[in-house]
Amino acid sequence: MCVGLDTDLTKIPSFLLDTTDPIFTFNKEIIDSTAEYTVAYKPNLAFYESEGLEGWRSLEKTVHYLRENYPDIFLIADAKRGDIGNTSSMYAKAFFEKLDFDAVTVAPYMGEDSIKPFLKYKDKRVVLLALTSNIGAYDFQFMTDKVTEEKLFETVLRKSQAWGTTENLMYVVGATKAEELTGIRKIVLEHFLLVPGVGAQGGSLQEVAKYGLNEQCGLLVNSSRAIIYASNGQDFALSAGESAKKTRDEMFELLRNRGLCG
Amino acid sequence: MCVGLDTDLTKIPSFLLDTTDPIFTFNKEIIDSTAEYTVAYKPNLAFYESEGLEGWRSLEKTVHYLRENYPDIFLIADAKRGDIGNTSSMYAKAFFEKLDFDAVTVAPYMGEDSIKPFLKYKDKRVVLLALTSNIGAYDFQFMTDKVTEEKLFETVLRKSQAWGTTENLMYVVGATKAEELTGIRKIVLEHFLLVPGVGAQGGSLQEVAKYGLNEQCGLLVNSSRAIIYASNGQDFALSAGESAKKTRDEMFELLRNRGLCG
Repeated sequence: MCVGLDTDLTKIPSFLLDTTDPIFTFNKEIIDSTAEYTVAYKPNLAFYESEGLEGWRSLEKTVHYLRENYPDIFLIADAKRGDIGNTSSMYAKAFFEKLDFDAVTVAPYMGEDSIKPFLKYKDKRVVLLALTSNIGAYDFQFMTDKVTEEKLFETVLRKSQAWGTTENLMYVVGATKAEELTGIRKIVLEHFLLVPGVGAQGGSLQEVAKYGLNEQCGLLVNSSRAIIYASNGQDFALSAGESAKKTRDEMFELLRNRGLCG
Repeated sequence: MCVGLDTDLTKIPSFLLDTTDPIFTFNKEIIDSTAEYTVAYKPNLAFYESEGLEGWRSLEKTVHYLRENYPDIFLIADAKRGDIGNTSSMYAKAFFEKLDFDAVTVAPYMGEDSIKPFLKYKDKRVVLLALTSNIGAYDFQFMTDKVTEEKLFETVLRKSQAWGTTENLMYVVGATKAEELTGIRKIVLEHFLLVPGVGAQGGSLQEVAKYGLNEQCGLLVNSSRAIIYASNGQDFALSAGESAKKTRDEMFELLRNRGLCG
């Protein structure tokens, strides 16, 4: 499981707004109450950038806090970056050097040289967008190639495999399109998939497990709003922990049913 | 003309590194010496994020400086963002509210709901990636649709027109692929095109003008490295100004040859 830190000042408990750094205070409480149930956190950059300099500071503090207190937890910068080579190198520096993230989400539209700079870092990973969880995914990602008869997201999966390894390249596949996972697993059997869209976006954990699990599990299922905003009262952290535990337990059961860990 | 502020601490004159804020100091000097020749500036977010909190502060100072001293100049955040609707709303807030940019570059992969939140702002613009200047553009952007026989970048141009107007939607078309501009102008005759790739990336201004101009001009040609790094000596600002003037004069001549302003 991955917990998405989409921290929004209009959604966090209002009594936190009186603290010096409401975003960081909220994140710290959420992290401390959910860390035992999750293997990864995924701050969504947009939520921090929307608060400008203060937001960027809260992000840095959150990453430092996680690194110091939970050094084994996997940290994904949900940033959806991607630009020409020399610019992608700068984004890689931002997320892998300035901020000590383990992985960053990258958009594939600009192709190989926009992705390669992120893959040069040892022990860091790219999470490439393949099939996203939103309705707009149907605008371009399902376009069928005249020659190969592949859909665009399938072409992204197939071509990009040559740019990295099963170790340093993961893919985003939305839980809301779980039925596509069977076909996706035929192209990328070994790669880890980051699966957003369970929870607030309506994706089904059961369907994701049914079609997406591989022999090593191979799934990192993200939930953001359903966990971090489980309550906006004084009990927000406790409720987030309970919601995280519930999701984790559901995942364990699905894994046990398939004879995988748990 | 648009001047790209891809400010890189390893490329600016070394004597600036002793100042309190080298990035802002460099930008300020470059802006003051080039502003009379350009209608737009385009800070590339990656270069600022790669310096973390300090970089974000330099970006904020640069935007404020431009707004205070050159209020009529058009400001583009070259950020290549794009995410599910609620997240894109946050990016829009970051660039249009927290930072007072006029436009932001957006990647199309995630479709309509990833772009619409940016278009909700009055007097702000989206610059949508269509055909990019890099070699990786050939990986996915030229994929031909089985049904429509359109290439992906053509589908992006055609479909996205319905999401905005000629006023609030522009497109990125790389100067390195100028020969495609004739076809592109058949799809988007009226829209402004932001054209990167002239200068360090090798695109030809003549070719861009030949195939890309429309009745109102319709082109915003960007140059970054060839202008801002024209010299890295004490004369860096003067040289940048001369380089900007030279490029501007070339553009004026091309426009005059076509009977457009100048």
